[in-house]
Amino acid sequence: MAYLDHVQHCNHRDMTHFRRFIVGGRAVGWVRDDKAAALDGLHPALRMAEDAVVLTLADDTPEARSAVMAEVVTGLVQAGALPRERQELYAVKASWAGPEIMRIDRAAISVFGLKAFGVHMNGFVRKSDGSLHLWVGRRAPDKAVAPDKFDNIVAGGQPAGLTLFDNLLKEAAEEADIPPPLARRAVPVGAITYCFDGRHGLKPDTMFCYDLELPEDFVPVNTDGELSGFTLWPVEDVLAAVRDTDDFKFNVNLVILDFAIRHGLLTPDDEPEYEALLLGLRQPHP
Amino acid sequence: MAYLDHVQHCNHRDMTHFRRFIVGGRAVGWVRDDKAAALDGLHPALRMAEDAVVLTLADDTPEARSAVMAEVVTGLVQAGALPRERQELYAVKASWAGPEIMRIDRAAISVFGLKAFGVHMNGFVRKSDGSLHLWVGRRAPDKAVAPDKFDNIVAGGQPAGLTLFDNLLKEAAEEADIPPPLARRAVPVGAITYCFDGRHGLKPDTMFCYDLELPEDFVPVNTDGELSGFTLWPVEDVLAAVRDTDDFKFNVNLVILDFAIRHGLLTPDDEPEYEALLLGLRQPHP
Repeated sequence: MAYLDHVQHCNHRDMTHFRRFIVGGRAVGWVRDDKAAALDGLHPALRMAEDAVVLTLADDTPEARSAVMAEVVTGLVQAGALPRERQELYAVKASWAGPEIMRIDRAAISVFGLKAFGVHMNGFVRKSDGSLHLWVGRRAPDKAVAPDKFDNIVAGGQPAGLTLFDNLLKEAAEEADIPPPLARRAVPVGAITYCFDGRHGLKPDTMFCYDLELPEDFVPVNTDGELSGFTLWPVEDVLAAVRDTDDFKFNVNLVILDFAIRHGLLTPDDEPEYEALLLGLRQPHP
Repeated sequence: MAYLDHVQHCNHRDMTHFRRFIVGGRAVGWVRDDKAAALDGLHPALRMAEDAVVLTLADDTPEARSAVMAEVVTGLVQAGALPRERQELYAVKASWAGPEIMRIDRAAISVFGLKAFGVHMNGFVRKSDGSLHLWVGRRAPDKAVAPDKFDNIVAGGQPAGLTLFDNLLKEAAEEADIPPPLARRAVPVGAITYCFDGRHGLKPDTMFCYDLELPEDFVPVNTDGELSGFTLWPVEDVLAAVRDTDDFKFNVNLVILDFAIRHGLLTPDDEPEYEALLLGLRQPHP
């Protein structure tokens, strides 16, 4: 394996199986052929065009779109095309700073190939001997996605109605018991973009990344059951695991590689994949 | 003005005026129509094809290519298509880590639209009150490119035969009198890519970026005449100047924006251009 394999894995897709999803006259997502078939006839507001699925409403407001999409998602679950609703609304936007186009249950985001946003935090410790360590979480065995895989100390999808930083503070408290005064020291350091063909459809994701330097005596504790524990790893061991294994959740590898690049743990003189990694971590979505 | 204007400025080009430059059977660069006309008939080893300029050698080694290209560059200067040679060789590569395809005088890099590499260093000071300051250089008034504009404390093109880090140490000593033991603390933090249509042709550039935290009492002194002086600016003032003016050299704006993103001075919750900037700073070359 190589670092770049993880980037390629997170961007594996064949767009010939997708058609555009049009809302308010704008292409906002992508629907895979199998899901287009499941959507055909499911709701009168969803019109099947030759090369697109079009949400067609007389009253074309974000609120009206959200109400119809809630019915559509329920219909998909009833038809067996989605396992369940997540009961958590995501805001649909063309970019994080853009206006809300509508809201939709998190479970259906990929069915419509909508952009999803999330926050990931690197919790690191600079020991008194100068060595850099990263807190690594292990995902609970009952997680639907990537059970038992290693994860960042804090990570979470972005629900509608919260700022990214407030979401980070909430997740930091729930996932790692980091008190808000400490979590507030987290520094936004960029974002990673990728897009792959997932179980239910396209995943054009943007992960906003944060670094938090933690005191040597801080020990994270999971409070929401999402993680089964934490270990403080020397950063060199983390990088070796990223390079040689699939032990980390697929997209967490990318967050760690971005951390390694920003902190000079990978260097352009020594790492042949350096430039390919840099471009690979920030790919425009289709 | 806006931050993003600088990104767009550094990527302004119309590829319809360019044809490929082929060396050893590989497309390694681009030649603009006016330069293709100047090259036509200049040297027997340069073959003009319909949509490409092809370096054609019986003995197709890096050394033989370099020897021929030296003759070509001299011919361009004699023909008035280039003002002068720089007497500094650049290595031609498809990526920094890749093998040398040949060497060519720095002055002719853009005539053939070859990838150029460089190093840029952010020299910053964290004052005792916690505030962040950046050392800003002013380019000498007699510089051919961007005279009198503001610059990073250390920056330089990448000559053949040096590692990036050794080049950084050399430039740090020459441009800012930073002693090697201090300069060696510089941390590689990524790279910025851009590509624009310049005076003599295409500029597909990669700037490797370094951060160096400097002690509060260090004062840079230019020793090579490239800069007329240095000032320590509060980082907020640097960002305001980047946002509102063209006072910084065109590509230095990008280095500062990358610094601002990595250090949390721009945040995704507050900066509407955040995602566009992130993608804009790392664009694949054509």
